[in-house]
Amino acid sequence: MNFCSECAQPISQLVPEGDNRQRYVCLSCDIVHYKNPSIVAGTLPTYQEQILLCKRAIEPRKGYWTLPAGFMENGETTEEGALRETLEEANARIKNPRLYTMITVPHISQVHIFFHGELADLDFSCGPESLEVQLFDEVDIPWQELAFPTTSKTLKHFFSDRQTILNENLSTQLPTHVFDISEKDRLKLG
Amino acid sequence: MNFCSECAQPISQLVPEGDNRQRYVCLSCDIVHYKNPSIVAGTLPTYQEQILLCKRAIEPRKGYWTLPAGFMENGETTEEGALRETLEEANARIKNPRLYTMITVPHISQVHIFFHGELADLDFSCGPESLEVQLFDEVDIPWQELAFPTTSKTLKHFFSDRQTILNENLSTQLPTHVFDISEKDRLKLG
Ligand SMILES: [Zn+2]
Ligand SMILES: [Zn+2]
Repeated sequence: MNFCSECAQPISQLVPEGDNRQRYVCLSCDIVHYKNPSIVAGTLPTYQEQILLCKRAIEPRKGYWTLPAGFMENGETTEEGALRETLEEANARIKNPRLYTMITVPHISQVHIFFHGELADLDFSCGPESLEVQLFDEVDIPWQELAFPTTSKTLKHFFSDRQTILNENLSTQLPTHVFDISEKDRLKLG
Repeated sequence: MNFCSECAQPISQLVPEGDNRQRYVCLSCDIVHYKNPSIVAGTLPTYQEQILLCKRAIEPRKGYWTLPAGFMENGETTEEGALRETLEEANARIKNPRLYTMITVPHISQVHIFFHGELADLDFSCGPESLEVQLFDEVDIPWQELAFPTTSKTLKHFFSDRQTILNENLSTQLPTHVFDISEKDRLKLG
């Protein structure tokens, strides 16, 4: 940020009075331009034993597989954002979405929020940002070709939770997982 | 937004190619300046039967009571943001925070995320943004003097969940609630 988006004067970087962090400040307008984390909203769509993944048609990570997700828009809820992205990327509809993972990725200042839900039907197809959209059994998940660590971590939690629920014969719902992914984790995961 | 924060040229409002929403675009830099929702992170601090609230020393809603919360910063996790705000506003420390409510307020494009946790000690006090910090029994909650609907809704869920857990003699944890607050709800709540 070099210039004030309100008045076009050069921006100063300083710690405002009563604050404890350096901010982008316009001394001409006397306003602080805050930079805050962004929300990525998406879904973990399942159909019976299978998981829906999309192969990305766009950068970053073009050609890699991801859960349908994207930046939340102003004026919508987290759930609406997640369902919209699922519709845009996979032309897919989800029944009874429930919050499943909330993952902060602090080194890029993003919070990724995934809702789990069953596909309402099998009438899915590629949106403009996808090269392929496909259902996978657990054994066929392309672990080496996943686009983002928030996708792989969400899938790992899901298979683990599903096994626990099966083993213990529980009629329970999936839990919600809140965690973060550091830059080190990201590199480990490829 | 009137000017590009990178080059100071006037901003155009248009729907970029491949997009479906009007954005702030700099035709000189050929970049889109996205505006996305902000995250407010906070806590619901409890001590035995009581709840910690802060009376706001600053606008908006100066003089009204709130759960400790504030804008999440770049580079921190949602939980770190919630604990930092609790420390800044109430000089209070929380044990074992767990996600309790995630509330979208779409008409102001904010997502409020509250973690429940027990106070680690009773050594709390006013931070610079608080006029008073106090523990309340349920019967003493100043419902008519709460600053924000996300505070009142989070408190209502908590008292209801606590009653359910007591009634059913459950050794269960609090659930997580995901919902949204419309402008109409906000007006109803005062
Ligand atoms: Zn300015
Ligand atoms: Zn520009």
